Amino acid sequence: MSAPLLDIAKKAKQASYEMLTAGTKLKNDALLRIADAIEQNAAAILLENAKDLANARERGIPGAMLDRLALSEARISDMASAVREVVALPDPIGRADAAWQRPNGLQIAKRRVPLGVVGIIYEARPNVTLDAMALCVKTGNVCILRGGSEAIHSNIAITNTAIAAAKEAGLPDGAIALVEDTSRETARELMRLNGYVDVLIPRGGASLIRSVVDNATVPVIETGLGNCHVYVDATADFAMAREIIINAKCSRPSVCNAAETLLVSEAIAAAFLPSCLNALAEKGVELRGDERVRELYPNAKIATEEDWLTEYDDLILAVKVVSGVEEAIAHINRCGTKHSEAIVTESYQNAQRFLDAVDAAAVYVNASTRFTDGNEFGFGAEIGISTQKLHARGPMGLDELTSVKYAVYGSGQIR
Amino acid sequence: MSAPLLDIAKKAKQASYEMLTAGTKLKNDALLRIADAIEQNAAAILLENAKDLANARERGIPGAMLDRLALSEARISDMASAVREVVALPDPIGRADAAWQRPNGLQIAKRRVPLGVVGIIYEARPNVTLDAMALCVKTGNVCILRGGSEAIHSNIAITNTAIAAAKEAGLPDGAIALVEDTSRETARELMRLNGYVDVLIPRGGASLIRSVVDNATVPVIETGLGNCHVYVDATADFAMAREIIINAKCSRPSVCNAAETLLVSEAIAAAFLPSCLNALAEKGVELRGDERVRELYPNAKIATEEDWLTEYDDLILAVKVVSGVEEAIAHINRCGTKHSEAIVTESYQNAQRFLDAVDAAAVYVNASTRFTDGNEFGFGAEIGISTQKLHARGPMGLDELTSVKYAVYGSGQIR
Repeated sequence: MSAPLLDIAKKAKQASYEMLTAGTKLKNDALLRIADAIEQNAAAILLENAKDLANARERGIPGAMLDRLALSEARISDMASAVREVVALPDPIGRADAAWQRPNGLQIAKRRVPLGVVGIIYEARPNVTLDAMALCVKTGNVCILRGGSEAIHSNIAITNTAIAAAKEAGLPDGAIALVEDTSRETARELMRLNGYVDVLIPRGGASLIRSVVDNATVPVIETGLGNCHVYVDATADFAMAREIIINAKCSRPSVCNAAETLLVSEAIAAAFLPSCLNALAEKGVELRGDERVRELYPNAKIATEEDWLTEYDDLILAVKVVSGVEEAIAHINRCGTKHSEAIVTESYQNAQRFLDAVDAAAVYVNASTRFTDGNEFGFGAEIGISTQKLHARGPMGLDELTSVKYAVYGSGQIR
Repeated sequence: MSAPLLDIAKKAKQASYEMLTAGTKLKNDALLRIADAIEQNAAAILLENAKDLANARERGIPGAMLDRLALSEARISDMASAVREVVALPDPIGRADAAWQRPNGLQIAKRRVPLGVVGIIYEARPNVTLDAMALCVKTGNVCILRGGSEAIHSNIAITNTAIAAAKEAGLPDGAIALVEDTSRETARELMRLNGYVDVLIPRGGASLIRSVVDNATVPVIETGLGNCHVYVDATADFAMAREIIINAKCSRPSVCNAAETLLVSEAIAAAFLPSCLNALAEKGVELRGDERVRELYPNAKIATEEDWLTEYDDLILAVKVVSGVEEAIAHINRCGTKHSEAIVTESYQNAQRFLDAVDAAAVYVNASTRFTDGNEFGFGAEIGISTQKLHARGPMGLDELTSVKYAVYGSGQIR
């Protein structure tokens, strides 16, 4: 066990007990000071970020990753603004979701409390450092941040700035922590710190999430994989269906709520597909279809079983003709990642059937899958999108960063 | 991978999609038929149970375990009655806990849905087989039951009876399954069936739960460990405090919500402890105290650090004098298992402070820790008591066997 990590974990656990009674005012005050300090320290943070960028370039890291790693005055200002937006959200801690009295007179209140110590494991995105920290502070959670090695100088600068500001506000020592040792070994130790870490939230690509799920003994909230479908039913409004699939595929292909497969009812395939696929191709989308699709649209490449299971995160779309809503549901339940699924239909019965029978976090009728997002759902913030069924499913806002406690008021009851 | 287990898992996953749309009537009908069939088949089940008992006696299994393993006409009848009680409970599936409209017109409903496939890993208690199965059927979950090898003949008889009855009612094939291969290897495979099993719930002792937490890659709900405390504050009503600690320790020492340590404020230790400890000793409780306790009550054995951390599950009580409510809270947060904790006090301020600052699933003022129980809380049923913070905390009833799905009704919205 790495001694610094164990030290961080012990301090974090101790701080988590103090955070149980940190009121909204203290937490918000700390967040405002953190936002100010990050802006005031922008020049120093940018110097450290430049070191990360120089190292990354030297190691030949791809452009998209460099872009996510790069900070600027404007990005730092955006990060600070996001923290101030979190301040403005209602604090879920202390809220009783239910309260009742038992026949023996016991009064029971089910209260929202912090999860405790939340470990966040993520990639080389320094903005996640501040974002995750802010959501944890707001919900009374202690965070142990473990970002990618490529961003370590930026992360140290951001975290040290925030820790100093939080201390001034009176937040307990240890309430915000960064694991500076970015070795895989130490990350695995963090995943097995039962008794110190209450929850792990991985944020990143498939391999990061897989590694956390495989190695963790601490409870994990699995996030972010999305092999999403749009099914165009026999009664669909064609114009609406075309707009929805174009939006779901093209508006931001790299994100988890983008569509990866288009399913079309055989009843309208010939009438709908050619012009829809043309429109997609004009947007630069590579199309991969089954045989029936290729009969109608010969420019499509051939789709294999692998395609039905792939989250491209790119301008590629698999297309399949199905017999109707039942085959669409069966295909989605077999091949999807239970993230976001949409039907376009004018049939009340098929809409209801799709909503009921598709097993996914978010199921849409006549809307784009791209709405699966904490802000679009009105949560005001998002720590990730859960694709598991335990604890949280779909976009996770502040409530999903809490647990419950039963407060029981008695007058001498025994059993 | 064991071929039969993979076959069970595949069928279970398929059945879980059909269970998404199994209505309350079908599920209740299946449960009533199961209850009837178990009673009608009692003689055959008892014959199989006799085989288990004979094997267990041959292997010299201890009496308490034999008692939990043994069935009788009356016990089978109780088991069937418990199933009928589950029928009478409200079905949480389909309930929308919240629904709202977004500025763009999207209507979002947060609906209760089944978890999917629930793996239950438990010890040699054949009553758990029927109990866990009934709660899963009621909540639309598919169960994969893996009980202890000592009860395998009983479990096969109970499960086969139930499966036949469920089939008659029209429940999908594979909705109830028992892993007949009780090897550790197969149990470990079950714990790693990501993609097939949505949740694992271990029910049993510390080593079983530890093994599941350590080996599972499927999300786990940790249950059942309870190192619970009663703290008697300076202002406590002595008679009430004595009744509460006697009840919490003696009414059922083997269960997780029994008290293991008594903490007493130094202000009243001399006045309160001697007669209270005498009363406990008269009930057969072995007392282990720190030095200050032993000054007041020399018959107490000496307590070591180990005692503060031990769940005796027996008529043994550790006793410690503390300076007041703050030391009591610190001791509980350091040594407890975050299950159930009680303060006895007439001080409003100390009661509130204890409720806020103790980190546990259930925190009591002036009541016994023994009330942490699904039935005592009014949930009508209980699948276990969660001691983790993710998903469920404290007694888990039907709601805790559900997840959520966002049903989103649109009219062509794109982002």
